[in-house]
Amino acid sequence: MNSTIGTPEFADTLMVGRLDSFGVAVRYTRAEGTKLYYVDDDGAEVAVLDGVSGFGSLMFGHNNPEIVEHAKSLLDQRIPVHAQMAGYSLALNVATELNKIIRRELETEDKFFALFGNTGAEAVEIAIKHAEFDRVSRVAALKADVAAHVEQARAAAAGGAVLSAAAAAVAGGQDIERLTAEVARRSAEAESRPPLLLALESGFHGKLVSSVQLTYNPMFRAPFAALAAQTRFIPREQPEMIAKVVEQDRVAVLDLVVTAGPAGVIDVVERDFPVFTAFMIEPIMGEGGIHPLSAELGRALREACDAIGVPLVADEIQSGMGRAGTFLSGTQIGLRPDYIILAKALGGGIAKLGVVLINEHRYHGDLEFLHSSTFGKDGFSSGIALKVLEMLEADDGAAYRQAAERGEKTIAMMEAIRADYPDCVKEVRGKGMILGFEFEDQSGSASPAVAESAKQGVLQLHIIRHLFRKHRFRVARTASSPWTVRFEPSIHLSDEDIAQVDVAFRDVCDILRSGDTSRFE
Amino acid sequence: MNSTIGTPEFADTLMVGRLDSFGVAVRYTRAEGTKLYYVDDDGAEVAVLDGVSGFGSLMFGHNNPEIVEHAKSLLDQRIPVHAQMAGYSLALNVATELNKIIRRELETEDKFFALFGNTGAEAVEIAIKHAEFDRVSRVAALKADVAAHVEQARAAAAGGAVLSAAAAAVAGGQDIERLTAEVARRSAEAESRPPLLLALESGFHGKLVSSVQLTYNPMFRAPFAALAAQTRFIPREQPEMIAKVVEQDRVAVLDLVVTAGPAGVIDVVERDFPVFTAFMIEPIMGEGGIHPLSAELGRALREACDAIGVPLVADEIQSGMGRAGTFLSGTQIGLRPDYIILAKALGGGIAKLGVVLINEHRYHGDLEFLHSSTFGKDGFSSGIALKVLEMLEADDGAAYRQAAERGEKTIAMMEAIRADYPDCVKEVRGKGMILGFEFEDQSGSASPAVAESAKQGVLQLHIIRHLFRKHRFRVARTASSPWTVRFEPSIHLSDEDIAQVDVAFRDVCDILRSGDTSRFE
Repeated sequence: MNSTIGTPEFADTLMVGRLDSFGVAVRYTRAEGTKLYYVDDDGAEVAVLDGVSGFGSLMFGHNNPEIVEHAKSLLDQRIPVHAQMAGYSLALNVATELNKIIRRELETEDKFFALFGNTGAEAVEIAIKHAEFDRVSRVAALKADVAAHVEQARAAAAGGAVLSAAAAAVAGGQDIERLTAEVARRSAEAESRPPLLLALESGFHGKLVSSVQLTYNPMFRAPFAALAAQTRFIPREQPEMIAKVVEQDRVAVLDLVVTAGPAGVIDVVERDFPVFTAFMIEPIMGEGGIHPLSAELGRALREACDAIGVPLVADEIQSGMGRAGTFLSGTQIGLRPDYIILAKALGGGIAKLGVVLINEHRYHGDLEFLHSSTFGKDGFSSGIALKVLEMLEADDGAAYRQAAERGEKTIAMMEAIRADYPDCVKEVRGKGMILGFEFEDQSGSASPAVAESAKQGVLQLHIIRHLFRKHRFRVARTASSPWTVRFEPSIHLSDEDIAQVDVAFRDVCDILRSGDTSRFE
Repeated sequence: MNSTIGTPEFADTLMVGRLDSFGVAVRYTRAEGTKLYYVDDDGAEVAVLDGVSGFGSLMFGHNNPEIVEHAKSLLDQRIPVHAQMAGYSLALNVATELNKIIRRELETEDKFFALFGNTGAEAVEIAIKHAEFDRVSRVAALKADVAAHVEQARAAAAGGAVLSAAAAAVAGGQDIERLTAEVARRSAEAESRPPLLLALESGFHGKLVSSVQLTYNPMFRAPFAALAAQTRFIPREQPEMIAKVVEQDRVAVLDLVVTAGPAGVIDVVERDFPVFTAFMIEPIMGEGGIHPLSAELGRALREACDAIGVPLVADEIQSGMGRAGTFLSGTQIGLRPDYIILAKALGGGIAKLGVVLINEHRYHGDLEFLHSSTFGKDGFSSGIALKVLEMLEADDGAAYRQAAERGEKTIAMMEAIRADYPDCVKEVRGKGMILGFEFEDQSGSASPAVAESAKQGVLQLHIIRHLFRKHRFRVARTASSPWTVRFEPSIHLSDEDIAQVDVAFRDVCDILRSGDTSRFE
């Protein structure tokens, strides 16, 4: 049906081999709107409806004409793409526009300072760096505090103050030097431990050396575990586990308190050492199977972060930029993050840009000098990002409303299929144009052929191939939820596109119910 | 002279404030060839010769017309920018073209498999991931080996074999169980240690969480040290230190050997545990002050890596892509790296692309499934990279010859200044269009004004500002070598441009010699 790609010799040799053996390797030659095109063996161009859509990068579709024209005009104007160390870049304007939108949506006067990277993964790494800088600052403040109290205690001891029963127990007697030595030992022990990150089970935050440690799927994460700080993962449905995990890794150091009395009493108290760097979440989990977080979990996350003093980081790389019907998907559950990360759709489907926005109350300007990137804040990507933001905000936010409306219509279509095929469709999830269509695990199917295929883990591949070959509908399953097909098309998804998806999914359900897997193309 | 930028409210507030206070903050509005342009307070456009040039990204100059036209044609053709999970992308062709060039230049039939990222820093992180996967594989192979020998030893002991004197010493007697327990304990201890990276002092390899640990400058690196595996740094001029550092961190585990004899003898031997992940170097150090590595160091690096079994990774992000007169700058010292990293100029001054090329004998195809990036291998950047490679290779490599010739002419000009001002100019370094012009440290100047300014660390800033304000020549000093001005212009640097640099540097030397710092604009 379509020309095979052939085995590439110098890259992706194994990967393309696998895609080819699944029958889904294809050389797309053109892309517009909701469609990718290839040329078949007879030389005819074939349109494929793209449900993958750059994993959410194509808010306005492939090669959106308005964005393409703008990109060309930036090139024609010969805008400076590289002008590092000059101070000004269009990225500053991107930061300003993002602040207008975010402050309006979060109903706050707080500023959000922007640090720029080139991809979502880079922005996650910048967020980790900033949060670690914050943690190290908190460690330094704690140390300074304790050091001052140790000096006070020494002076008090010299003046005749005695150790409290608790302090004497720590020191093994009335010995101020042994007490302060123990304070120092506990402090050094705490500092020698690597920091920990917090994230949710099934979360996805990129694949660079540190960010991959926040990505739950052990296949991606485990081989590289020795390279970077580790993450404690919390089950999404069990907010009560947050406190438990935090308690398990809690590290306390000793501090001294000189209390009143004739010559004073030197007491010892425990203080929490800053163990955690950041708590990173996706308000709508993407790779994990399109799971919008509950408002209850959102509140629990905010409370937990406040209690332990770590920043709550909302990774809106896939869910943000209006796709869910609001600029930030977390807004719909009242989420108030300390950091916000954006990328994917910010590049307009052409350029590459990532950004971390940090609430002014938690911002360390030092990062402006400590972090930089040659490609970061370039004029071309920034210029395109400005166009994207302008298009989102046009007509009083028509794009957000369109995302929501297209989502409602698509969800209604999917729910109707689920009503007709409850044995085949387990759940429809998501908001706006970030949707998950979860098939029922078919391992228990009455059809031996279907059940066997499901048990072998290949049924989903048959489904995906059938959708592609028979229905010219391209989807991917989510890595951490193998029965879920993710659907993240452009907001310009047409009624005809929705009808095409309807027919395609119903056909798959029909085959599954019939038990005749030979009908899969 | 030029409109001030004003303090940005939502990004780079401190950074722009500092640049502004140095008098070098400027809003460039247009960029072409070797020049950046701004509009002065009188509305006149002012051209500035750009010696920074995207830190080496602008091999063919700002907005090179051929690259710009090609970018526009990619957009006009509506090529698929995002087509993940389809197998084919233009990036495969980039890998093929890179192999043609590199195999020719390194005079090898070996293939180099390509793994793509979006920036130099991302490509460094991918290289670290690949090398760590390799290290973990070597650890697993060692463990399997030892486990098999332990089983052999147990069987031999059951058959009456005795422990050698050395083995009995380890076990504290003729006790096979205590011996194998000690083998297991040593192995577990080795595995619990985090891996180490190797790099050169003053090296620069990016600023993401792991890559920044390979970047020598402690200002950039130290605040984030707890987040990722650490690096042992080797002084560039002391290749003999490599063996010393490697020995210091050497970790040995125990293995068992059953030797011949009536019932056999069980002996114990030490085996090296794979401690190191990779040795990362720049064949021409950029940020460290433009230092080409010596052929002697290159040989020592190759031997050291072979001896300890770690990959030698050549970071050619700044020095490669023809800038030094050969596609890889390391070729000029006969360097034969296992991995090669490219970025910057690969993006043609417009797009963002990074790649690691890995010798087939060290390549793990698993990474094709373990690593990925939404923006990676995109059609737009790959299409531009193909154009850049075509331009480099055109006319039998005229671009490489042009880089070399422009370099020779520029170096001759700079050396003539040094001959005239030996008190002001310490050294001229580099090859082709990656040059360093190092001023003498002026702290010992006969002029109290100059000496004082040098001691305060502001003289270099006066020089840079003067070059910019008086001579419309924009340069940056290298972060780790504060007296070195880096000069990495396009290969289209004209004779007039060279003359402009000549006049500018001579004027600075003249002021330094005169001791009259009031002449600095």
